[in-house]
Amino acid sequence: MMNIAIAQSGGPTCAINASLVGAFKEAFKESSIDAIFGSVNGIEGLIENRLIDLKDMIKSTRDIELLLQTPSTVLGSCRYKLPDWHDDARIYEKIVENLNARQIGAFFYIGGNDSMDTVNKLSQYLTEHNVDIKVIGIPKTIDNDLCVTDHTPGFGSAAKYVVTTMREIVRDSLVYSIPSVTVVEIMGRHAGWLTASSAILHHLGESAPHLIYVPEAKFTVDKFIADVRQEMSKRQAVIIAVSEGVSVPEDVLSGVVDNFGHKYLSGIGKYLEGVIRNEIGCKVRSIELNVMQRCSSHLASLTDIKEAESIAAAGVRCALNGDTGKVMVFRRISDAPYTVSIESVAADQIANKEKFLPKEFVNGAQNNIDDAALPYFLPLIQGELGLIMDQGVPCHFTIRDSILS
Amino acid sequence: MMNIAIAQSGGPTCAINASLVGAFKEAFKESSIDAIFGSVNGIEGLIENRLIDLKDMIKSTRDIELLLQTPSTVLGSCRYKLPDWHDDARIYEKIVENLNARQIGAFFYIGGNDSMDTVNKLSQYLTEHNVDIKVIGIPKTIDNDLCVTDHTPGFGSAAKYVVTTMREIVRDSLVYSIPSVTVVEIMGRHAGWLTASSAILHHLGESAPHLIYVPEAKFTVDKFIADVRQEMSKRQAVIIAVSEGVSVPEDVLSGVVDNFGHKYLSGIGKYLEGVIRNEIGCKVRSIELNVMQRCSSHLASLTDIKEAESIAAAGVRCALNGDTGKVMVFRRISDAPYTVSIESVAADQIANKEKFLPKEFVNGAQNNIDDAALPYFLPLIQGELGLIMDQGVPCHFTIRDSILS
Repeated sequence: MMNIAIAQSGGPTCAINASLVGAFKEAFKESSIDAIFGSVNGIEGLIENRLIDLKDMIKSTRDIELLLQTPSTVLGSCRYKLPDWHDDARIYEKIVENLNARQIGAFFYIGGNDSMDTVNKLSQYLTEHNVDIKVIGIPKTIDNDLCVTDHTPGFGSAAKYVVTTMREIVRDSLVYSIPSVTVVEIMGRHAGWLTASSAILHHLGESAPHLIYVPEAKFTVDKFIADVRQEMSKRQAVIIAVSEGVSVPEDVLSGVVDNFGHKYLSGIGKYLEGVIRNEIGCKVRSIELNVMQRCSSHLASLTDIKEAESIAAAGVRCALNGDTGKVMVFRRISDAPYTVSIESVAADQIANKEKFLPKEFVNGAQNNIDDAALPYFLPLIQGELGLIMDQGVPCHFTIRDSILS
Repeated sequence: MMNIAIAQSGGPTCAINASLVGAFKEAFKESSIDAIFGSVNGIEGLIENRLIDLKDMIKSTRDIELLLQTPSTVLGSCRYKLPDWHDDARIYEKIVENLNARQIGAFFYIGGNDSMDTVNKLSQYLTEHNVDIKVIGIPKTIDNDLCVTDHTPGFGSAAKYVVTTMREIVRDSLVYSIPSVTVVEIMGRHAGWLTASSAILHHLGESAPHLIYVPEAKFTVDKFIADVRQEMSKRQAVIIAVSEGVSVPEDVLSGVVDNFGHKYLSGIGKYLEGVIRNEIGCKVRSIELNVMQRCSSHLASLTDIKEAESIAAAGVRCALNGDTGKVMVFRRISDAPYTVSIESVAADQIANKEKFLPKEFVNGAQNNIDDAALPYFLPLIQGELGLIMDQGVPCHFTIRDSILS
């Protein structure tokens, strides 16, 4: 018999709690696993010994259903980067002490490429020090920028939000009888996956977005203005999707840097709105989809939620089979019918790396997404959750604030 | 036999097309009405003789179902203010000429307080000139600021979006183990109805929003900072709802110039974000719900959509009964069970006027909404549409762009 621990990390998505459910359910039915702990605030919970008993937290099928429709991380999150253990092993010793004190034999970390760095370092440390605790990474990120895996849990729901909302913005933009431009800013610092997913609208008969700019394509302000002018010659209301990370002249956007050295970007949409106002002078507005694109569980993709459960359950099987230092990945077998398999790869193939849009997804003019990309995106946004509502509002699963603070 | 015309005006909502459906269906089953025209871009369509045959446009129950889940105005909109006809009657003569040419005996205008000015002026002109064409106003606005009526179609769906999204933002805000403030900017230049509706979350067991600022309450930046500090002493993640129209010193929201010398208008949310960063120095972000709060039909309130249909149908009955220059209104009979009647009032009681939050809806400290307000808001967000989906995305009803341009 052993106990296990699960933690959630990085930026919120709609599917992180579904992965918690997937790991929990798989562990619950496994006779060799006794207690299932949740580490509060990701790896910080292991360091500071803040763990809660998930069997006390998740007590019914209704709890599970609520978790599946609750965005963000019910156990809290962190942006904590483990030091190199050759330089400083004290944090690692603390983690091992806390894991051993609770007879935890496997740790599952649901997170993005930064969190997979934690999986990589911690599993290496444990192996080198002959500590038999398995460490397995469960991928998640709305950015869809993890290497090896076909896609990441959380991305499909975010894409479904982007496509649905973009279509509603299109309707909103068509009402007046004067020319107008709408710039929609979508998350994605280096990879344009989420912005590119807005091209699904083309498959649904919409001409919008008329221009799509991703960080992988060449971008200049002069070319942008020329593109907008050309679209305005063809239609009254021009709708533009732009990744937050499209490269504009330096120091246009604020330069706050987070713990991982990521530049905190804000304002490409607002910036391009200003460019259009000054250079073209038409009615123009910018819309930032902001955190709604990562937390709108009421629009979650059923495919995404189910896959987030499955990949976490597979992670538990992987640890039980004796693996460690692995990250679970999807491999796509076919687009239609949509089929994926779940496999595992060494964490160092994923940690701290980014996957970018393939060249063939971007059109020749570098200002839109090629139709060739659509079979990749379409299956990921299919299906809806049957939401549990209370008084007209989707319910969420919550634990006492005091547990998280 | 007579023909009728319907037009849509002002800012988009999720319920304007439902009112089009309500008027269309009522007219369709009425033997004394023959053709049903739609005027493109509101009153501009009547002036410029841009009318389309709605029986050609709406041909099936599926078309009707799609219209009910399509945001914005399928017939386009306008922001056109009729001149005083004593000063300049030419526009009015043009309208009468176009209405008479098509034997239109009644005109229904779906819009907000500006549009009701059009209803008022046009009906007065027609009466004074003995032209027997009825003009009836059908209310709509997410701002809920029309006088006399208990509430306006469009508001309930916007409120449902605000409450649902605010709850998701709460989950998104609770994840990290450091103090943070989230400022959510909600539409409402002069009236705080939509911002106030976020207080429904209190009824659902959420402590957030912890602070709610509406234009009707006194607001000073110093008091705001003190309020935020006090909330931060009680909890890790402070969530604030603020109306775009909360009054701040005049020069702060305009005239901001970016690094390239581009002037851009900053919203109240961004402004307050800056205030908190500078004065308190904690992690802070602002989120503008932007046009999503008025066009997110995927989250429409069924109560709102059904009422938008009913009030427009009642408008058709009102004209058939010989009334003109009237606006249809809801009168609330009881909160629970929720019951409203539909009546009509003279357009001049509504045109160009605004209705504000009652004093008793705002708390004593002027920084939140009193629980006494909740029975008013709650019934308006109840129920959901069963959405028609295509490939994972809600479908919309559209007519050819060329008709609208």
